[in-house]
Amino acid sequence: MAFELTEDLIEQIENLIEVGDNQSILNLLEDVHHADIAEILDEVTTEEATYLVKLLDSEKTSEALMELDEDYREEILDNLSPQEIADELNELDTDDAVDFLSELDEEIQRQVIDAIEDEDHARDIVEMLRYDDNSAGGLMAKELVRVRETWTVAGCVRKMRAQAQNVTRVHSVYVVDRTDRLIGRLSLKDLLTADAKSKISDIYIPNVDSVNVHDTAEDVARLMQKYDLEAVPVVNDSGILLGRITVDDILDFIRDEADEDYRMAAGLSQGVEADDTVWELTRARLPWLVLGLVGSLGAVNIMKSFEGALSVHPELFFFTPLVAAVAGNVGVQSSAIIVQGLANDNVTGSMWLRLLKEISIGLINGLALGILVVSFGVIFGFGWLLSSTVAVAMLSVIIVAALVGTFVPILLDWRGIDPAIATGPFITTSNDIFGILIYFSLAKLILGF
Amino acid sequence: MAFELTEDLIEQIENLIEVGDNQSILNLLEDVHHADIAEILDEVTTEEATYLVKLLDSEKTSEALMELDEDYREEILDNLSPQEIADELNELDTDDAVDFLSELDEEIQRQVIDAIEDEDHARDIVEMLRYDDNSAGGLMAKELVRVRETWTVAGCVRKMRAQAQNVTRVHSVYVVDRTDRLIGRLSLKDLLTADAKSKISDIYIPNVDSVNVHDTAEDVARLMQKYDLEAVPVVNDSGILLGRITVDDILDFIRDEADEDYRMAAGLSQGVEADDTVWELTRARLPWLVLGLVGSLGAVNIMKSFEGALSVHPELFFFTPLVAAVAGNVGVQSSAIIVQGLANDNVTGSMWLRLLKEISIGLINGLALGILVVSFGVIFGFGWLLSSTVAVAMLSVIIVAALVGTFVPILLDWRGIDPAIATGPFITTSNDIFGILIYFSLAKLILGF
Repeated sequence: MAFELTEDLIEQIENLIEVGDNQSILNLLEDVHHADIAEILDEVTTEEATYLVKLLDSEKTSEALMELDEDYREEILDNLSPQEIADELNELDTDDAVDFLSELDEEIQRQVIDAIEDEDHARDIVEMLRYDDNSAGGLMAKELVRVRETWTVAGCVRKMRAQAQNVTRVHSVYVVDRTDRLIGRLSLKDLLTADAKSKISDIYIPNVDSVNVHDTAEDVARLMQKYDLEAVPVVNDSGILLGRITVDDILDFIRDEADEDYRMAAGLSQGVEADDTVWELTRARLPWLVLGLVGSLGAVNIMKSFEGALSVHPELFFFTPLVAAVAGNVGVQSSAIIVQGLANDNVTGSMWLRLLKEISIGLINGLALGILVVSFGVIFGFGWLLSSTVAVAMLSVIIVAALVGTFVPILLDWRGIDPAIATGPFITTSNDIFGILIYFSLAKLILGF
Repeated sequence: MAFELTEDLIEQIENLIEVGDNQSILNLLEDVHHADIAEILDEVTTEEATYLVKLLDSEKTSEALMELDEDYREEILDNLSPQEIADELNELDTDDAVDFLSELDEEIQRQVIDAIEDEDHARDIVEMLRYDDNSAGGLMAKELVRVRETWTVAGCVRKMRAQAQNVTRVHSVYVVDRTDRLIGRLSLKDLLTADAKSKISDIYIPNVDSVNVHDTAEDVARLMQKYDLEAVPVVNDSGILLGRITVDDILDFIRDEADEDYRMAAGLSQGVEADDTVWELTRARLPWLVLGLVGSLGAVNIMKSFEGALSVHPELFFFTPLVAAVAGNVGVQSSAIIVQGLANDNVTGSMWLRLLKEISIGLINGLALGILVVSFGVIFGFGWLLSSTVAVAMLSVIIVAALVGTFVPILLDWRGIDPAIATGPFITTSNDIFGILIYFSLAKLILGF
């Protein structure tokens, strides 16, 4: 059932473009889904993609363009006239149209908006450009089915038919009063099973979840997931129904958030893909590497200040990468657990209990690893005293690293900063420094040098 | 609009349970959503939760139980009789009922199934218990609206009314032939806008995406995301319509997958939450810590074999944590990019080009960091020669770490192993060892000791 994009097909399309055989291209791509058209656009050159976008029906290419990478979409749009862009926008729901438009220069934006045929659509788009990307207003679409509480079921079905033409998928029917204030909803199932003569006011469900147009995207995502909503209506401060957000918009948002957390844990400072250019990949990677390096250079200076140990116990220096690695790994684990906990709202209970818990986990892990280190040290001839010193220092380092990894994200969250930035290289680096400082201080205390 | 769970409310409920004032509890929780009931069950003791589950309407508690953590749900279910469990299952869609049931012992499973009133429901559940959790069969629900191509629109609406009673939300209406083979779909919008006398065969959409009951959950998730499907029908090998998968099931699946990748990148060997017990948290953390430690102990032995350098250039040992940290950070970045790329299917092009690209990125990053290291070294009195040696060694380490981070996941993917296991501590540790080996070998070559 699934469409298979073959090199043969791409070659065939490229040849047809070269000879300008438009009819054959149209026949070939007639039944191809817009998501597959997007894959084709991704495989051909920008010029060929532009050719296809101009040739194919806007209904299909507009949705295909939405699926493309932003940068690549911009390249293609640069080759289109404002009128051609407007034709594409005409076919999109307002939320997608706004995403599309907000990437263009303001001057071109104006020209495109002027060129949109449907004046209501243009007005909706202009209104939505005002909302923040990360708010309910930025996520919502204006297309929805709205009925008055005073209508009858039969009249409602009649009027809905007209409205439904403009709505790709009907999720819910929203019921409003005379002033367009949202007062409830109606499922299509209810309409199907209701008597044609009943009034909407008799059958609608008055209990409807809604979000304010200024709510954050995070809050909307949380609400929709908690209550398993497939669509949620958006209202302004007076309760007037403005639009609706559907689960697929939220799905994209959730994936982006998860990707971002993963990215930060891996020390990438911006969204990159394996296929980006060397320059884009470097820009994403270098900042955290520099931060990590600066931290490590601090650790070099700390070790230098303990160089007295070199003459007495040089083997201590063989264990510094081990101590740093353990501190880094423990810190990343602790921060990942707490960052996910904060995101899912399940960090509850008193801070003292959490402190006690982290210390217990640190003790257990530290004892287990300590036994391994001492066994290794004795077997490989580092002696009891030095091996035990390393083990005791490592135990302390583990506990400190776990506390740093746990409480730094919590503090950031309290201050309203995204705790995810405290994962990855940030935690690793600060734990490297702390770890080495604690390790040598304890070793000096025990071994005396 | 959102429900606020307060400590007062919890206390009130606990007091009412203690005095056994069932009527007040029922009144208090009458209009509370099942997702909020789940939060309440989470806050009270297992005994109190059991009391509430027995008292409240199964329609509400069954959905609430579905929202709970598996372990906690099992504890509550242990306090219920097979008949009471069956009452809960009666209210659930087959997919949820199966998730619910599969956690119980086989003996209790049988008793519960025998106690389910609705025989069709029981038969569906037994059938679905056969499918693998991670397959389309494991994700699907049997509840759907099915119409024959030979019906008229009016007849169809009449028959749909009956079917719709059993289906919580109607996503799509599936059209089947006489042998129950899926041949197309019908949107509710089409039904609303069609003439009552037309035949279904005249108005249905024959082009319907479907998945095979044995397809993997990953494939289903990819298909539904690519084509923005809110529901997809599931068929067997002969094309017979068996059930449907909705986007909320896929949403859970996608979140679980993202969480798992994050977890692996952070070095956690199993799913844990911040609120789990010390023992559960230790079990999730210790395995990777031990792996990391064993790797670091290898690095200790490598350094020991270079102890000749101690007498000539002891400062070299101050830089080992730095080299190890850089190698680890570069490796994690590279592996995260490639793992996400593999998951999104955008690792394309020749392997030679990718090799060249990673080497270029490594060179750029290595040169930038090298300049920093040399400046630091000269300023803090480590001298030109030693600082340059460290910088050159670090550059080589960066390139090797980037290559390991990139190609190990690709190799694993080729062998059919989840490449995400090659992120986090695994890559960090192997790069630590490689890094230190390369660093000292190069230093020996340049400085001669």
